[in-house]
Amino acid sequence: MNATIDLLKSHRSIRKYTDQPVGDEALETIISAGQAAATSSFVQATTVIRVTDPEHRKQLRHMAGDQPYIEKAPEFLVFCADLARASLCCEMHGIEAQADYTEQFIIATVDTGLFAQNCAVAAESMGLGICYIGGIRNNIADVAELLGLPEHVYPVFGFCIGHPDQDPDLRPRLPMSVVLKEGSYSDDGDRETIADYDKVVEAYYAKRRGGSKAMTWTRQVAGLLSEKCRPHMLPFLHSKGFLKR
Amino acid sequence: MNATIDLLKSHRSIRKYTDQPVGDEALETIISAGQAAATSSFVQATTVIRVTDPEHRKQLRHMAGDQPYIEKAPEFLVFCADLARASLCCEMHGIEAQADYTEQFIIATVDTGLFAQNCAVAAESMGLGICYIGGIRNNIADVAELLGLPEHVYPVFGFCIGHPDQDPDLRPRLPMSVVLKEGSYSDDGDRETIADYDKVVEAYYAKRRGGSKAMTWTRQVAGLLSEKCRPHMLPFLHSKGFLKR
Repeated sequence: MNATIDLLKSHRSIRKYTDQPVGDEALETIISAGQAAATSSFVQATTVIRVTDPEHRKQLRHMAGDQPYIEKAPEFLVFCADLARASLCCEMHGIEAQADYTEQFIIATVDTGLFAQNCAVAAESMGLGICYIGGIRNNIADVAELLGLPEHVYPVFGFCIGHPDQDPDLRPRLPMSVVLKEGSYSDDGDRETIADYDKVVEAYYAKRRGGSKAMTWTRQVAGLLSEKCRPHMLPFLHSKGFLKR
Repeated sequence: MNATIDLLKSHRSIRKYTDQPVGDEALETIISAGQAAATSSFVQATTVIRVTDPEHRKQLRHMAGDQPYIEKAPEFLVFCADLARASLCCEMHGIEAQADYTEQFIIATVDTGLFAQNCAVAAESMGLGICYIGGIRNNIADVAELLGLPEHVYPVFGFCIGHPDQDPDLRPRLPMSVVLKEGSYSDDGDRETIADYDKVVEAYYAKRRGGSKAMTWTRQVAGLLSEKCRPHMLPFLHSKGFLKR
């Protein structure tokens, strides 16, 4: 173990921030750390939009399920998977761009994930707190319009940054045997291990929410798969030229 | 700046390793650091498969474009986006799982990216080197069969780990003004900035490859979009129950 690993293992989403600004210099340090992450075929398919306009922040807050920290966080970024820049490279060489393959969507989405996670680690190493905002996909077409996103660019998630004004507990993760498999995929024994883990998560929620709410991991996750999950995503992505073949 | 940010900014893919093993304990530390990354709606949609069988390593090497380090690295992992476990949660609660929405595919893919990038940072903080292997998607159906992946699980990338036996230069990234935008998306001025950056990348390649190969960034990226890009991906993902609506 070392200090970096301790830092990684101490991550919690921070949703309350002090008024202290993050500052341009710190923000650029965070972004340059993000850029240093691996990028598939060197495509660098991520563009970050920093939203500072209070009216736009307010609108984004409402588009993303009324999460107040989107409006209140000292910094709010939107991480975009961007193949428009790669298309520009094609144009500069007189080549017709083909950016509608599913594989390219995966490349741009993974690039953006690696970039953002480096930003998260960099921010936390500076004593800042962060929170990913998947909720911007609730009304993704409105978000894309507000940010002026062209074809072949989509907003993957938002990202709040600020100085923490809360100190939440760590959320317990699945036991190692469930997530790390030897040789091939198997869920042998997972059912029992997960049932035990449910009790750990239930105890965590009981403590965190003052015992007012009972929730296990399996029940929470089952909820995610039991209903229509942002069914507008595929038509939206098609409209932006993604995932066509 | 601090030591963690210096570490993030010193990343290069390592493709040559000494014979020194990584060891079970270090590997579990790396995976637990990966688990500590943010996860959308707490779904924890990542499963890592550690491949140790030499014959399987050899096969994976050939499936992934004959990259020798897949066979030779002390550790080779395959990071899988996994919604089968979430389906198991549904089953445990007698709920019918719906895992075929595009949104769920994005959730699982992003979860896997964040998890893996934490693993990359953890490994590098221990003096190890890593290399992402997108090439496993060249023959993704064969990889999935070899690893016994069920419905709603797909292999996103491979990941080599070992003690570095090379010291490659840092690859210069795009200027900040191109990747960080204020308020809304715009490529104003990017063309000129990118043309200048092309010269930086060309100088990097000339040095790295002993001057034997001339390559700019825009030419390299244009190549990615100028031809069919793993056109088997969408039919494969459909066959695994992903991206159906």
